[in-house]
This record gives sequence, structure tokens and C-alpha cells, in this order.
Amino acid sequence: MSANSIFAFDVYGTLFNIKSVDTTCEKYFPGRGESIGQLWRQKQIQYSFLRQAMGKYVPFSSVTRDALRFSLAAYHLEWTADTEQTLMEAYNHLSLYEESLYVLQKLKDQSATLIVFSNGSRDMLEPLLEQAGLNDYLDHVISVDDIKQFKPSPASYQLILEAVGAPRHEVTFLSSNGWDISGAKAFGFTTAWINRSEQPIEELQLPPDYQYTTLTPLTQE
Amino acid sequence: MSANSIFAFDVYGTLFNIKSVDTTCEKYFPGRGESIGQLWRQKQIQYSFLRQAMGKYVPFSSVTRDALRFSLAAYHLEWTADTEQTLMEAYNHLSLYEESLYVLQKLKDQSATLIVFSNGSRDMLEPLLEQAGLNDYLDHVISVDDIKQFKPSPASYQLILEAVGAPRHEVTFLSSNGWDISGAKAFGFTTAWINRSEQPIEELQLPPDYQYTTLTPLTQE
Repeated sequence: MSANSIFAFDVYGTLFNIKSVDTTCEKYFPGRGESIGQLWRQKQIQYSFLRQAMGKYVPFSSVTRDALRFSLAAYHLEWTADTEQTLMEAYNHLSLYEESLYVLQKLKDQSATLIVFSNGSRDMLEPLLEQAGLNDYLDHVISVDDIKQFKPSPASYQLILEAVGAPRHEVTFLSSNGWDISGAKAFGFTTAWINRSEQPIEELQLPPDYQYTTLTPLTQE
Repeated sequence: MSANSIFAFDVYGTLFNIKSVDTTCEKYFPGRGESIGQLWRQKQIQYSFLRQAMGKYVPFSSVTRDALRFSLAAYHLEWTADTEQTLMEAYNHLSLYEESLYVLQKLKDQSATLIVFSNGSRDMLEPLLEQAGLNDYLDHVISVDDIKQFKPSPASYQLILEAVGAPRHEVTFLSSNGWDISGAKAFGFTTAWINRSEQPIEELQLPPDYQYTTLTPLTQE
């Protein structure tokens, strides 16, 4: 690991466990927590792709709320404004994966440049990073909201280059989302897919350069 | 219904039942046909969105094959090149929904302009329309392949305007896919969502102008 290493981490599903919201969903809709959480995440991602393709950007906090509303309606549930707000706030209190903090610390000790790069708007990202105590380790917090184009658009990944001023292949991009890895690879980053649920590689002819099941191997190279 | 009416129909899921492929999947992978068919369709759509966002277009026949490969791998299945080819060919023999032909005939009798507009590349669309005997009713067969941008990009819907030379709101756009209706609405078409599986409206702030459970009400206005 050289002192010039640059690591760009995706946030949702990569550093933080998005399944944390299932517990809050379960509290309000017993027996349905996991199904709602899963559909919520699926629609959240789909809406970001659709808005990118339509050229109809709105901040990820709005996308996340829209996806929640669709998911609850799809299960024929009724809910109050208070419940909706509590579910939305669950996104500000996601749990870190158990190795995330250690890996960031270790890489920082080795003088790596550490970036988080997310579809999340700052109203979502900032409270999340703050409560998890990550800010001390991060050189850059980059949101696609600065350019109003979601991943996997090339313009979104370009934001990382503008922050670090390095050639693309020197950036190691880490995500648990196979589609995000494909987008980053298409852009020209070195990619490491954190394949936490042992999925097949996306059939997009853009395979990852490295594949791990957790972030831990990053500290062992 | 005026003689100037213009109807643009989506193909997969709107005129043709994409669940037709489940039977072929079931033949090769007993007990898994429906699950494979569902994941195959979901990945097919997702890959078209991703390629649109990444700017990495390939024809829909390639997207469809890639989505099939991912789906079979996700279920830890093994398959031969022959099986893959047979499954792919199932897309050229989808069943029409029971009302599709009658509705097209009826609208044609009323001198409407009838268009099919699809993400499908011509190597998929032409055999499908031919075997179903639809060509006699259609004034235009439009594929996004002509511009190499998938729906729901504005550039894709623009192809319809170029074919008919009419203002956007005079085109009635029909699709069973909520996301396609949102894209068409964002573009400025009059939209009718053929909500066959009684899903909630997509939370994209682009609701359909009309909503039906089949195409039949089009002949009753």
C-alpha cells in the first residue's frame, strides 16, 4: 500500500448495512419488515436509474421517500406522516458493517486518501457519517448532488477525479453494488467489488478487478 | 375516436405477455420456471437502464441474453449453449394478450395511426410481430436501436414524433410498465397505463393520464 493510494468508498451497502432499516420497518409493520426493506431499497435504486435516464433529477432523500411510499402502497399498507418520518430517519442511523471502521483506520494510518462517494444527498450523508464518527478518517465526502446526476453516469464518477486530481486507474473504487462497480469500471477506475451476498458478476462485460466478501482484505495487501 | 388518433404501443408486457417465456424456462429447469422468468425480466430492464446511464448501449437482444445468463447463474444452474438459444428464441414466440389483436383491428378500422415502439432491437421485434400477424395493422415499427438510446430517455420517445410529425400531446402512449409511462409522460405524451397486475402508481410525480387493466377500453371511448 503506497502513501499515494486513493480509495473511494460507496456508502449504502458498502460501509453501512442498509438492512438496518428492516428493524424499523418490522416495528411498524410486524412480519413485513424484511420484505418492505428489500422492496424499498430496490425501488430506491430503480428510481435513481430512471431519473438519470429521464433527465429528471431530484435529491436522493426525495428518491428514498418516494421509494418508501411506493413500497408501503405495494403491500397495501396504511401509514401516518409520523411513521413515514421515523422510517426515513432510520436512513440516518444505519449500522456500519463490523469491519468498516477498522479498515478506514488502518488505511488512514498508511496515509491513504479516503473518499466517500454516494448517490446520497448531503441531508442524508452528513448525519449518517457524523453519528458513525467517520469524518475524522475522510479526506473527501462527495455527493452526486453536486452535479445532479446519479451513478452510474460517467459525470458522477468524474466528481472523484476533480477532488483528487489523479489519473482514473489510480483510484480504487469500492462498492457492494455490482452495477456501481460496472459503472466505475466503465469510467476507468480500478474496482473492488465487495460481494457481501455472493452474487454472480453482473453480465455487463465490465467485470471487477478484485472481488472480496468484506472490506477487510484491503488492509492485508 | 378521431381519424387523426395516434396510438403508440409498447411491446413487451403491453401487447405481448412476457410471462410466456416461463413455460420454456420451466421445461429446462423444473420448479424454477416462474422465478427464472421473473428475474430474467427484472435484470433485462435493469441492464437497459444501467447501459443508458453509463452510455454503454448494446442491442436489446444482447441485453436479454446477458440478463438470462445472470439469472441462471444467480440460481446456481448450469446450462448448455443449446438451452440458452432455445430460451432466447422463446422471446420471438411470446403470446399476444387475448385482447391485443381485436384492439388493433378495431382502432385500425377507425383509421387511427398505429405504432409499436420498443426497446427491442429489430432482430427480436421483426420475428415476433411477424409470427403474431401484426404487421398489417401497424403504420410504424419503431425500435430505440435506431438511435441507440434506451427508454426512458427523451431521445428514445422523440423517435415517435419524428415518425408521425404531430405534437407530443396528440400521441397516446400505452404501456404496462409504470416506468415507461412515467418516461413518456415526462416527454409530454398523453399516457394510458395498462396496469395489468394492479400495481400502485410509480412515485415519480408523473402519473398516467388514463389507467386501465387491459387494452380493451381503448375501443370503447
